[in-house]
Amino acid sequence: MTHTIESKLTEMGLTLPAPPPAVGFYVPVLRTGNLVVTSGQLPFMGKELAFTGKVGERLHEEDGKNAARICAVNALSQIKSCLGSLDHVRQIVRVEGYVQSAPNFHGQPAVLNGASELFVMLFGDAGRHTRVALGVSEMPLNAAVQLAVWVEAAD
Amino acid sequence: MTHTIESKLTEMGLTLPAPPPAVGFYVPVLRTGNLVVTSGQLPFMGKELAFTGKVGERLHEEDGKNAARICAVNALSQIKSCLGSLDHVRQIVRVEGYVQSAPNFHGQPAVLNGASELFVMLFGDAGRHTRVALGVSEMPLNAAVQLAVWVEAAD
Amino acid sequence: MTHTIESKLTEMGLTLPAPPPAVGFYVPVLRTGNLVVTSGQLPFMGKELAFTGKVGERLHEEDGKNAARICAVNALSQIKSCLGSLDHVRQIVRVEGYVQSAPNFHGQPAVLNGASELFVMLFGDAGRHTRVALGVSEMPLNAAVQLAVWVEAAD
Repeated sequence: MTHTIESKLTEMGLTLPAPPPAVGFYVPVLRTGNLVVTSGQLPFMGKELAFTGKVGERLHEEDGKNAARICAVNALSQIKSCLGSLDHVRQIVRVEGYVQSAPNFHGQPAVLNGASELFVMLFGDAGRHTRVALGVSEMPLNAAVQLAVWVEAAD
Repeated sequence: MTHTIESKLTEMGLTLPAPPPAVGFYVPVLRTGNLVVTSGQLPFMGKELAFTGKVGERLHEEDGKNAARICAVNALSQIKSCLGSLDHVRQIVRVEGYVQSAPNFHGQPAVLNGASELFVMLFGDAGRHTRVALGVSEMPLNAAVQLAVWVEAAD
Repeated sequence: MTHTIESKLTEMGLTLPAPPPAVGFYVPVLRTGNLVVTSGQLPFMGKELAFTGKVGERLHEEDGKNAARICAVNALSQIKSCLGSLDHVRQIVRVEGYVQSAPNFHGQPAVLNGASELFVMLFGDAGRHTRVALGVSEMPLNAAVQLAVWVEAAD
């Protein structure tokens, strides 16, 4: 079986990591009916957070965008572990993006485009999702970004 | 075809605006099964935000309530663009309300009643929704309120 | 009819309270299809909030954990009022946990384990949920924790 979406990821120079484990007493992904929901994904690369601190202070907007992209790749890894293949995604339904933000930083939409652009590049129209973008003051483990994703499965 | 709910809006002196475009790389509304989900709506009137700043500081609670009501009208506009008519709403399922809040401001429920009251006045029991109300420190574009809405469609 | 899950709660020394009323113009719980969604639950015990203030400042992490557990019990009470019995829960799908956090407090996952552990102890695998954990600066009524729960009903 070919993995079309994963091939595109590879062409973009990205690879799916092993799905990051939960950082608490819960599971990282779950299916209910045709909906697949991920837990909040942090910008883990292996066992380390790639970006900690607040965007607009220690981190630049571009750092935040890279963090959001890593969260998105981790979310895709969770979704694959649930569905067997990213080709079973019918639609990315909803992205919830939380940016640990310095006072007076209001560029959360640009930060989260790091995730949103990836989804659209990979899935085309099926990657065009609804989104909630928020700045929060304090994040688990001091992570710069957290991303949760809702997906409709193909069957 | 008559638009009962929109007629009620008109009687209340409100009109549905054109649905505000997304402020990033995503879509403003989407349907999955019988659920319709909006992206986070900001208090746009045309191309301008009607209310920016923090509630409890630059803005009074009543300003926040007005901002929440504008967000709610924008959400209804998105839902109409998805379903064709607001009369196809079976139930407002969930409202997520985020209030950009000054330190020690805890009146988020009163602020969000600006949206919740509108939904109940328009839809009656079908407008009685669940709600999450949060104060956040920093909002996209410095908007005072953000509102996301989940709806069950009639068929 | 026996209430297996409630019996386990009793064995743990916990009892379901009357479901707390909404603190605004909305409803505390609602079903759409097979999904049951609660409004954000605060750590009410009767008419009083058991924990107010910020975790990492006025409150210790252990206080926050206790607050999260009370929110979880209140959420279970809402779910029972919707389904008739907690034995009709097929799966706890998603827990959204918000912790009113002092600057530089990043222990939200440990705080929310107060809720997550309870769900897993009561429901076993059916209690293993996805989770979003956030620190927020200001909470309605100065509550320490807010928790919203999504459940899949058995039929």
